[in-house]
Order: sequence, then structure tokens, then C-alpha cells
Amino acid sequence: MEAPTKNPAAADADASNRGTAPVIPFDSARLDKLMDDAGIDALLVTSKHNVQYLLGGYRFFFFDYMDAIGISRYLPVFVYTKGSPDRSAYIANTMEAYEKELNRFWVPSVKTASWGTLDATRLAVEHLRCLGRPVKRIGVETAFLPADAYMALRDAMPDSEIVDALVPLERLRARKTPQELQLLREASDRVIDSMLAVLDAHGPGTTKRQLVEALRREETARGLAFEYCLVTVGTSHNRAASDQRWEEGEILSLDSGGNYKGYIGDLCRMGIMGEPDRELENLLDEVEEVQQTARRPIRPGALGNEIFAAVAPLLERSAHRAYTSFVAHGMGIISHEAPRLTSKGPVPYPGDDADRPLESGMVVSIETTMLHPRRGFIKLEDTVAVTETGHEAFGDVGRGWNGGNVGGRASA
Amino acid sequence: MEAPTKNPAAADADASNRGTAPVIPFDSARLDKLMDDAGIDALLVTSKHNVQYLLGGYRFFFFDYMDAIGISRYLPVFVYTKGSPDRSAYIANTMEAYEKELNRFWVPSVKTASWGTLDATRLAVEHLRCLGRPVKRIGVETAFLPADAYMALRDAMPDSEIVDALVPLERLRARKTPQELQLLREASDRVIDSMLAVLDAHGPGTTKRQLVEALRREETARGLAFEYCLVTVGTSHNRAASDQRWEEGEILSLDSGGNYKGYIGDLCRMGIMGEPDRELENLLDEVEEVQQTARRPIRPGALGNEIFAAVAPLLERSAHRAYTSFVAHGMGIISHEAPRLTSKGPVPYPGDDADRPLESGMVVSIETTMLHPRRGFIKLEDTVAVTETGHEAFGDVGRGWNGGNVGGRASA
Repeated sequence: MEAPTKNPAAADADASNRGTAPVIPFDSARLDKLMDDAGIDALLVTSKHNVQYLLGGYRFFFFDYMDAIGISRYLPVFVYTKGSPDRSAYIANTMEAYEKELNRFWVPSVKTASWGTLDATRLAVEHLRCLGRPVKRIGVETAFLPADAYMALRDAMPDSEIVDALVPLERLRARKTPQELQLLREASDRVIDSMLAVLDAHGPGTTKRQLVEALRREETARGLAFEYCLVTVGTSHNRAASDQRWEEGEILSLDSGGNYKGYIGDLCRMGIMGEPDRELENLLDEVEEVQQTARRPIRPGALGNEIFAAVAPLLERSAHRAYTSFVAHGMGIISHEAPRLTSKGPVPYPGDDADRPLESGMVVSIETTMLHPRRGFIKLEDTVAVTETGHEAFGDVGRGWNGGNVGGRASA
Repeated sequence: MEAPTKNPAAADADASNRGTAPVIPFDSARLDKLMDDAGIDALLVTSKHNVQYLLGGYRFFFFDYMDAIGISRYLPVFVYTKGSPDRSAYIANTMEAYEKELNRFWVPSVKTASWGTLDATRLAVEHLRCLGRPVKRIGVETAFLPADAYMALRDAMPDSEIVDALVPLERLRARKTPQELQLLREASDRVIDSMLAVLDAHGPGTTKRQLVEALRREETARGLAFEYCLVTVGTSHNRAASDQRWEEGEILSLDSGGNYKGYIGDLCRMGIMGEPDRELENLLDEVEEVQQTARRPIRPGALGNEIFAAVAPLLERSAHRAYTSFVAHGMGIISHEAPRLTSKGPVPYPGDDADRPLESGMVVSIETTMLHPRRGFIKLEDTVAVTETGHEAFGDVGRGWNGGNVGGRASA
């Protein structure tokens, strides 16, 4: 598999589309091969993450937040036919005409004319028909294509079979380019900076809700779109925002996702309001040892399984094994993506990647969680990229017990 | 139609679910009647806005931002059967167990066990089957039910007809409670405060992109989830964020949506870097006159059409009629909702509300837009609630030419 050289994440696409022949921002030969393997002739891509990728990092503001609009829903559609990237189309909302005017699309055909699912589908079908070729199998993302759009597509293309295209699209994205890696590095750094700023600014008596809101502000101030924050304080294992207070002497965990230009920073760090005792030091050391052991085998050619094999002895001999868990999974544009390393993840995957070699440019999230019955929730989560020669961890600071502002006020 | 007395937007639901009989946070008798009219026996509600409403204002963090997870998508499902609100169920993500532990659900049955669309659908079907009654027609939201979930539902319930339930669910939400109105008032106030803070802090040379990012920070600092900002500067009509600068003497428009606890503030205000000349004063005065005239007829019993009739003569005799447009539409949890007042909106609606009387608690967004060919984009957008005796505008300040910080720096 050749190294990815295209740039699917141009930070500023303003300059694109000014030449004559379109510059395709992803590896279209690879996509064609993946479609061939899956027997797919054309793609109607409707998930925001895959549309972003195929448009070279483009994100309309609806990609971040909004969905519902009028009596329907915003539905961006990228239409691709195998072997003809230059005949791709993007079906966009009417308001995306402002983006088109600024030359933000590499795609030859951009139709900024839809408001909902059905008009977007109709425009996509029109484009497919204009190509004048038979389309035996249309690949869609069945979890990201609304039911009404699916039915409209089926009715409009009765001679085509509609199949799921999750696997080829995910495989296309599995290796990140240097530009994508830089965005992931930035995302991780900014999430960690935000966490440390929150801990530094808050004193005893701050509620979990206040901590989450403070992290939202800190991430936003650093140019991230805040996605979520799971938080525990004291000996509780409950990770929801609430009025529970972080009191003197208590530990804290912050597990947050922040999105930088479409790429995710997702890390977990620990804090304490005061000084950790010996037992807490030892517990976090043990979690840290699992995390460091897990990243050690990571390099091109290693199997995903080697990560699990490396940590297994540690976990087996741990006094805390009954309540300590470990997981590793690919991440990037979304929080769990290829490589699919484990069936312990949220959902089983048709093509498990644990027996396949890791490749440079892949990015793995590594998590060790200890649900200590007496001391509380202790976890580290890291983002580790496969480099040409080994690995690199992003946002790799603040890994010990980070102190809260013991002399500070409850809420800053 | 009786006044809404239930509270679908309890700001803090922590105390709920502690008693014995569940307190239903919406008007279930009204929902039953709407379902009866539509011939629907059970509902599988999957849009975040309607799930929020039926759960009494509950929002999991995935409601704000995330969707894609693992190889599928987050899919909350609220299951309701006509006449039996006490047999409702909520199918939630595994991580929502933390919320359940904090008693945040009024629903008797909460299953925090899903990761994607298919397992969520299977759990919803199981619940329907356990009720042991024939379900002739199942109402779903076809734009918010993924294709794979739709197919799974159809296969699991072959004897049931699956129909769209948009209209009954939207009608259920059309009249806001005092608590909902307060959230909308807060959302509007905070959006306007944020806009004025941005104008106050930025000097000549600030780019549109910097203005949008500053507004994102200001809204976030005020507890809003920033949804979007459309922005123009100078004589351009382009509303996308870009590197275009707001220079001395130039006008600006800010049109932003910010979400407060699930309710939208969506307003547009004007700014100028310096002092407006007489022509600009007159142009904004004309837009303001249309806006004030539009709200005048608003009271319970007035028809939606009266709003349009009131402004028609103004628009007709305007020297700027060729490039001035007016629209009014319901808003609340989403940016265009019932009452549906105009077919000029983004999409036609099966049941146009313009010929029906307005009712207290309804909320209308009113927009007048002048695309002046020489002076630029001039617009005001307001949020007006129907009160018992007339109307009330939310966030009703900053309606003139708001000055930028002429002596200030380009970016704060």
C-alpha cells in the first residue's frame, strides 16, 4: 500500500479551484480500487466526516452543529463514480453558495440548491443520470442516509442495488497525511492545554458542571469545537456533569473530545485538589505503565494485536485487574475509526484490523481505565501516531497528578 | 386548544423520577389526540429535538455535536404508545447510564445499552413487542431515522405500516410553556449581548473569520452552544467567513444562531466601523419600519397572514423593493418550526399555518433583508413571542447602527 501523499485537510482551501483541471485532494486511485473490491460503481456519500474528507477538509458550519432545518434536515451529498473523479459532484445547501463564490470546492460540479433530504437526493440522482452510464451498485452510508432519502433513491434508481459503503470509505481514510497528522497534533495539544488551564483556575468546591463549562470555554478559546467532557471527582465513578463538587483532597478525571478543523483531540488526564498520597501515586503509575507499554510495539509492520499482547501480562498480574480495562482503537476524523483493533470496542466491525500490519500515518487511541472501588476513577487516554520508524504521541504532557488551585475560588 | 401548562424544559431535571408515578413533562393528551388524527398507534422518535422535548428538556452531550461513533451513529430513541405515556421507553447510549444514575429521566423504562443505529432499533422494537398490543401504524421521523434503522424496523415489524410523524410532533411543540419562553428569551438576550461585545472589541482590519471566532467565544462564555454566524462586511453580499477585512467606514451584518439549553436565539444586527451617513440611516430605518410593522398585528387569534398583509404595502411602495425580502416563520427548538407561516420558507409544508389563528406561546422569527447593490447587506431579524394579550420581542436591543471599535486593534 503506497504512502498517502495527497492532502485531504488543506487548512485553507480558498486558493483551490482557480486552475483548470481539478486537483483531487484524496487518493482517487485507491478509492477506485476499494470500490472495485466492494463491487460498487458509484458513491452517494452523506456523512459529514466523509464529505469533509472527500472535499479536502471543507466544512460548512452545519457540519459542526446544526442538522434539523425546516421540516427536514441538512444533507450534504458527495457523488462519486468509479474511475471518474473529475465527474464528481457536491450537492449543497443553498447557503453554501457563499462558499462556492469563494472557490472553496475542488469538485467540478457544485449545486448549492438543497434545503432538505429529498431535494438533495433528487439532485444527486440527476447528476448520476446525466453521466449516462449504467450504475449497477450504488454505495451509501446506511447509518448516515435518512430513511426518506433512501426510499427516494431506491424509487428513482429501481435498477440499481443499494449497498453499504462504510468499509471502503473508512479504509480510504485509515492512513493520515502529514497535514492531517498536524491537525491531530494541534487538536491534542489544545485539548491538553485547555484541561491544564481549567485545573489551574479552579479551587475546592467547584462543581463538575462548572468544570465542564470552563473546559468548553477554554477549548473554544483555543479554536476547538468542544465536543464533550466526561468528568469524575472524588471516589465516584459517575462521569456526567452535575452539581457534585470537587473538594480538597479529592481526585478528578477529565476525558474530553475537542475538534480542530474536523480532526479530533480525545485524551484523558487526572487531577487532584491537593497532593496525592503514596497509594494514588502508585495507582496512576500502574496505569501509566500500561499506557507506555502499549505504545512500545507501535511501528509500521507491527500487528495491532502486538499492542494487546504487550499489555496482557501487566494486566494479568495487576492487583487491580478485576476493575482495570484496556482498549486501543483507530481515531482521526471520528472518535473510533480504522484501524479497527479490537472487538472490545463499542461495536464489532466486519473487517477486524488487529491481525493486519499497522502502517505509517495510522493513528491509535490508547486507553487504560481503573475503576478503583475505594479511590475513584483513574484513567489515561493517549493519541499515538504510527510514524515511518516508530510512533509519536500527541499532546503527551500532563500525565501525572495535575494539581487544582487549592488556594483558588470555587469557580473562575 | 387548551393552553400548555406542562413543563417540557425543566432547567434541572435532577429531582425528577424520585417519586412513584412519573410526571409527564409534555401534554400527553394532546399528543394522543394528534396521533389519533394521524392514525398513528406508536411513535419511534429519533430526532434530537423531539427526544429533548419528550424527555422534558434532557440533552445528552451527543445532542450538541457528535453523531458518528464507531462504525455507526448515535441514535437516541423515544418510544411512545398512544394513550400509555407511562409505558414509554427511552433507548440510550451506554454512557447515558451516568445520567440515569442521576435520575434525569421521567420515563419509566430507560435502556442505556446502545452504541449505534441497529442495536438501538432492536431495543426499541423489543419494547414495542413487550407491550403486547397490535401496532398497526408506527410513526417515525423519516428524515431523522437512518436507512439501516428503517430497514431493520420494517423487517422486525412486517405487519406494521411505517408512516411519517413530523406533523403531530411539530404541532405538539408549537405552543411554548412559560419555561420554554424564558429559555428563548435568555437565548436571544445572550446572542445580542455577544454580538455587541464583539463589535465593541474589534477595530478596523478585523477579518470576517476573526469576527466569527470572536462571536463563537462570546456566545460560549455566555453559556450558549454556538451554532453559526453569517457575516457580511462592506458592500459585499457574501455571508461566509473569510479573510475579507472589516475596514473603516464599512458596514457589517451579523446573523447568528446560539443554543441555550436546547432553545435557539437567532437574530441579525448591523454594525458600522465609524458613523453611518444619511443614506445608511434611511436604509436601516426602512428595514426597521418593516420589522416593527410586522410585529404589530401579532396577538392570539390573529392569522399568520396578517403579518404579511401588514408589511405588503410598505414593501410595495419601497424604492428598494427589487432587492428587499421579508419572511416570518415559527422557531423554538429548531430554527424553522411551527407555526409554518409562509411557503417562501426553505421548504413547503403539508399544513400551512398562515390561515390559522396564532396562539399564545407561539414564537415567530421575523426577517427583513435588503441586498442593496451599492451599500451592502442590510438586515434585521427578530424573535417575537405571542403573549396572552399581544406580543413580546426577545433580545430587542441593538437595533440601529452599532459602532465597531474605531480606535481599537484589528483582532481582540
